[in-house]
Amino acid sequence: MVHNDTIVALATPSGSGAIAIIRLSGNEALPIASKLFKSVSGKALEKQPTHTVHLGHIVDGPRILDEVLLTIFKNPNSYTGEDVIEISCHGSLYIQQEIIQLALRNGCRMANAGEFTLRAFLNGKLDLSQAEAVADLISSDNEASHQIAMQQMRGGFSSEIAKLREELLNFASLIELELDFAEEDVEFADRKQFKELLERIGFVLKRLTDSFAVGNVIKNGIPVAIVGEPNVGKSTLLNAILNEERAIVSEIAGTTRDTIEDEISIGGIGFRFIDTAGIRDTKDVVESIGIKKTFEKIEQSQVIIMLFDASLIQNSEFRIQNLKVEIGKIKNKYPQKPLIVLANKVDLISDGEISNLKSQIPNIQLISAKTGFGVEQLTNSLLNLINTGALRNNETIVTNTRHYDALLKAFGEIKKVEQGLDSGLSGDLLAIDIRQALYHFGEITGEITNDDLLGNIFANFCIGK
Amino acid sequence: MVHNDTIVALATPSGSGAIAIIRLSGNEALPIASKLFKSVSGKALEKQPTHTVHLGHIVDGPRILDEVLLTIFKNPNSYTGEDVIEISCHGSLYIQQEIIQLALRNGCRMANAGEFTLRAFLNGKLDLSQAEAVADLISSDNEASHQIAMQQMRGGFSSEIAKLREELLNFASLIELELDFAEEDVEFADRKQFKELLERIGFVLKRLTDSFAVGNVIKNGIPVAIVGEPNVGKSTLLNAILNEERAIVSEIAGTTRDTIEDEISIGGIGFRFIDTAGIRDTKDVVESIGIKKTFEKIEQSQVIIMLFDASLIQNSEFRIQNLKVEIGKIKNKYPQKPLIVLANKVDLISDGEISNLKSQIPNIQLISAKTGFGVEQLTNSLLNLINTGALRNNETIVTNTRHYDALLKAFGEIKKVEQGLDSGLSGDLLAIDIRQALYHFGEITGEITNDDLLGNIFANFCIGK
Repeated sequence: MVHNDTIVALATPSGSGAIAIIRLSGNEALPIASKLFKSVSGKALEKQPTHTVHLGHIVDGPRILDEVLLTIFKNPNSYTGEDVIEISCHGSLYIQQEIIQLALRNGCRMANAGEFTLRAFLNGKLDLSQAEAVADLISSDNEASHQIAMQQMRGGFSSEIAKLREELLNFASLIELELDFAEEDVEFADRKQFKELLERIGFVLKRLTDSFAVGNVIKNGIPVAIVGEPNVGKSTLLNAILNEERAIVSEIAGTTRDTIEDEISIGGIGFRFIDTAGIRDTKDVVESIGIKKTFEKIEQSQVIIMLFDASLIQNSEFRIQNLKVEIGKIKNKYPQKPLIVLANKVDLISDGEISNLKSQIPNIQLISAKTGFGVEQLTNSLLNLINTGALRNNETIVTNTRHYDALLKAFGEIKKVEQGLDSGLSGDLLAIDIRQALYHFGEITGEITNDDLLGNIFANFCIGK
Repeated sequence: MVHNDTIVALATPSGSGAIAIIRLSGNEALPIASKLFKSVSGKALEKQPTHTVHLGHIVDGPRILDEVLLTIFKNPNSYTGEDVIEISCHGSLYIQQEIIQLALRNGCRMANAGEFTLRAFLNGKLDLSQAEAVADLISSDNEASHQIAMQQMRGGFSSEIAKLREELLNFASLIELELDFAEEDVEFADRKQFKELLERIGFVLKRLTDSFAVGNVIKNGIPVAIVGEPNVGKSTLLNAILNEERAIVSEIAGTTRDTIEDEISIGGIGFRFIDTAGIRDTKDVVESIGIKKTFEKIEQSQVIIMLFDASLIQNSEFRIQNLKVEIGKIKNKYPQKPLIVLANKVDLISDGEISNLKSQIPNIQLISAKTGFGVEQLTNSLLNLINTGALRNNETIVTNTRHYDALLKAFGEIKKVEQGLDSGLSGDLLAIDIRQALYHFGEITGEITNDDLLGNIFANFCIGK
């Protein structure tokens, strides 16, 4: 990886808009920008202080490409730690492309995916877990995942790891020092204190690796299977949830959705709703296939909502008994998965019919997706199912598979050291396992790294970041 | 229209990317920003000079929303002429929305479409035709339309109109002055000079209104009907043109297209290709309907390309005579429209067969869309058909229907003044027509305007511009 050339990329989302930003970073960013840019004030760009904005034109020989604002960031006070130039141009696709072309013709190279952030990491502006949080931050679409990424980007996660690593490093040094005095049989490292430290580290690592389950759910959304036949009001229900949430969080024009296979943010947590057909007992082969599919989808979910049309109670062919059989089937098959039974369209039935439903099906929830009745109660039940305690307590939550793997490995090594200590393993063998644990900590923050690893991490970024 | 409140909007394209920009404009932009923003340096935002950039965090009480760069533009040195704050945040949809929400809760109002540019106009930063050019600039997707919008935004068009207006205004004043001395029968305005001026203005107006045809073509693309039966290679041809152009203009990842109803920029001019079926003579009713549609599409086009598969010459059922009949039909029906007859797949036939084709169909162009042979010649022929003289000579080209209407009306009034002058019309009547011409000039630059007109113009902008 060569990192001393000057890179260029579009930093704003692709498409046309009022403004677009083209970013240059590298040693030659300022001289290259000077060639493209004629300041209205006539002042030389190179002599301007960092963090200043200049009005002028992007020119290609005699041709004026656009009127722009150009911002200068001088190293090390920039995102990448190098000299950075941001050109804020009119947001037409044509202008964006032409300015990038012009920069390329004047000595820039097109940036690779994530290369700006990679440079920030290599220049010590961010550690590796912070750099990874940048991509998470950009892709986070609800409050919970945003909060986790933000905490990680601000160094919450790294500082927790760094603290453990430092304490462990202290003991490692002491134990390695003992090796130099092997013949004298001294113990610089207090074995009791060391054991306490290992226990503490083990405890923290356990908490962090355990948090991955929650983190994963928050990052990817909680899959909720909605079991219900057509016309029981599945889309109406989701739109009702969406409206309920929208009224709270947003006045900006939102989306209306006509598919129910979609993600909705409830109280800052993403829920992925999965449409399924019902599981009505049948001898019809085609319907049996449908039921099989329903079960497959329930398999992938963490929560089951069973939705039925309560107004059918007025239909003489409707049997509550059948419904209870279906509920029983799901409970038997998935005893671990929370099940919410929802009677929709209760606005259409009488109080007597409601009492009847309630008495026959315990814990049934009544809603009217159409009028909004009961929707808030439902969203509360969904939120209560999720253990968001850690989130609320601002604890570090692991969402990144790479971190999870490294933490698991570090945990394994720590356990080995503990066992070694218990069985009176010699210092030189202990030291090997400690070093191994330290190695896995270093992998997370990027103190230990290699080109392949970096390549893999930053390839998942978008170009321009 | 009330314009003293502070507005906020996303300025970058919607979607997620590395960076997004949220823009505030108005009297309260700076105090509102100060409430949302905690500078890393700890310095008070209000005391910072204009055109400076500050690193800090967007905060909502104790909650940190994002790490951002904030740029200050103080009135009148900003796009709108008001105090402007640009917040450059991480480009997640969630962050964009949350920051806008936060600004709204702290006293901003969501900007209407085009409101930033409207304010720039109302504050005298741009005249009306320049403001309109901003929208054209953002939507321009090829060099020609970009160049016209750029020239207009930089005041080329306005200055031409303003010059004519001023000269006319001079004479109007002199003639109106004569009215004050009506009893003395003096002539302050030299009638001969005035007639010369009117001729000159008439000439310029004629040139400008004439340029609208070219301008329209450049703005909307030149419609080209491709007449040809399925499998003659229509999409291959368009992809060949696209590749030819892409090799010249762009190294950035381009588009591949599988529809042939699309626009391709050739030499900086947009060409809209319209797919049609052939016009083979037939008694089949369904096919007759197809032929009728082909003619309807040719109707809408300015250029006709007739494409056929030259390799069919080797098929015993193929008759060059039939082809000549079809060509003759099109020529008869549309004698004014340029027709390019293209023999595709010439890589598959022999030199003898090529000579045969050439001798029987004059001006036939040979190509192989597959190998790229003849494609450059074709793009050159297309460009030669378009009168881009005005474009190359950097003359003002009218692309805006509103301007065209005003210019036509001004032209009509100027002609009336000329006739009045010839028939010895009295000064007071002349003055009325001159004022009317001045009015139409003022409509273009925005000296004469009203809320309805402004509403119509800026409603076509995107929000955030």
